[in-house]
Amino acid sequence: MLTPGAFRALHRPGDPLVLPNAWDLASARWLRAAGHSVVGTTSLGVAYAAGRTDGAGETRRETLDLARRLTAAGIAVTVDLEAGFSDDPDEVGDFAAELADLGVVGGNIEDSDAEGRLVDPGSAARKVAAIASSAPGLYLNARTDPFWVDAGGGAPDRADAAVERAIAYLEAGATGLFVPGILELEVVARLTRDIPAPVNVLVQDRITVPELAAAGVARVSTGSLLFRIALGAIDAAARGIRDGRHVGDPGTPSYAEVVGTA
Amino acid sequence: MLTPGAFRALHRPGDPLVLPNAWDLASARWLRAAGHSVVGTTSLGVAYAAGRTDGAGETRRETLDLARRLTAAGIAVTVDLEAGFSDDPDEVGDFAAELADLGVVGGNIEDSDAEGRLVDPGSAARKVAAIASSAPGLYLNARTDPFWVDAGGGAPDRADAAVERAIAYLEAGATGLFVPGILELEVVARLTRDIPAPVNVLVQDRITVPELAAAGVARVSTGSLLFRIALGAIDAAARGIRDGRHVGDPGTPSYAEVVGTA
Repeated sequence: MLTPGAFRALHRPGDPLVLPNAWDLASARWLRAAGHSVVGTTSLGVAYAAGRTDGAGETRRETLDLARRLTAAGIAVTVDLEAGFSDDPDEVGDFAAELADLGVVGGNIEDSDAEGRLVDPGSAARKVAAIASSAPGLYLNARTDPFWVDAGGGAPDRADAAVERAIAYLEAGATGLFVPGILELEVVARLTRDIPAPVNVLVQDRITVPELAAAGVARVSTGSLLFRIALGAIDAAARGIRDGRHVGDPGTPSYAEVVGTA
Repeated sequence: MLTPGAFRALHRPGDPLVLPNAWDLASARWLRAAGHSVVGTTSLGVAYAAGRTDGAGETRRETLDLARRLTAAGIAVTVDLEAGFSDDPDEVGDFAAELADLGVVGGNIEDSDAEGRLVDPGSAARKVAAIASSAPGLYLNARTDPFWVDAGGGAPDRADAAVERAIAYLEAGATGLFVPGILELEVVARLTRDIPAPVNVLVQDRITVPELAAAGVARVSTGSLLFRIALGAIDAAARGIRDGRHVGDPGTPSYAEVVGTA
């Protein structure tokens, strides 16, 4: 299994780690079988599979359970901690330490709340500092959400906010920065120029991975995309079957191929 | 939520129920949102997601947990019991009663073992009888596996075995019969002619649902297909992203669409 140090080394600005996000042991096992040495988790998938609300701090137990299952299966994972499942930095630090003890290689912590509002950067930085202190081995990916929530202002204002928050989180001990949302290429370039640490963005609808690489990105995450693609695929297949079509394609594994997966 | 009686009424020979099989609450919620009033479970998906072996009786707890989650969410479900997770018919009956108490509408029980061998039909019939007695409200779908395991013989011999076993299971109290495997259309017609109960087959590679309907089938299950399609889709998407392509399609739900699903 990948060590935290080896995971860190995969973050190369200009040659990014493309990190697929899993939501259960099945998706994680299959992604590993497909050659991915590490997966992230997607809080949307974890929350939806638990019948809970994403980003609302409701899935502490499920997040820990998933981390336990994946590490027990020898799958390297970086965990989406949402906002740490607590307002108390000490509790956030304890949770991160619990994950680190399991062998988790990294974690994301975000600076917006369940209502989709940016929180005070000082309060987010205190959580970052608590994690950095209690789980120093983790690749601590601080997520800043000016482009994710309805933060007001245009792209330049949001980029200013992202950079300012990024620097506060790096000073608090973050390893890298994650800026989710739909970004223009010039914003990506601005972020990688002004944030002195590996920058992580989501896979984009209008910008390809090679373009993100050229703009200096060090990690591209799929976020909830693979989970949503899986949902869309089963809906389309069930509909096709009902309509009398043959479904699946050469990329659909056979029963024996799934059973034969380590 | 669908009652067992309403579920039974959906089994119309010639106008089959197309039953999608889910493996977790996420897939089941999404299928319900897509308009499916009932789902089955797929033991392959349940086992793979638990890091266990399919068809080996290793997922009793996970099967019960999934039934509990789905019924708690108000999702009508018929549960794959594999071979009942016990050699003792009384224990199999107790397990079925536990499922029925949760509000499960039906269950499948199979007559092959972990090594892929057909078991003695008398022993399988005793499990069917135990379920019929302890959970009389369940739609009890007895699965017979001459076309699923390597039973030897050609299609006519296997069809003879399937019909003979089907009749034994119906006499023991089964509601319907499930004959998984790859079938020729004439075999399907033979099964529906000679089995005096609703016949369930898997979705087929070479026969469409309208053809199965015309041959008298009352239920078409997707088995592990949707699960395998989901795995294939996330692998293909992750690969595509790495290769610089845009992935997903108009059928891929947005983040907001998933969050907005009941």
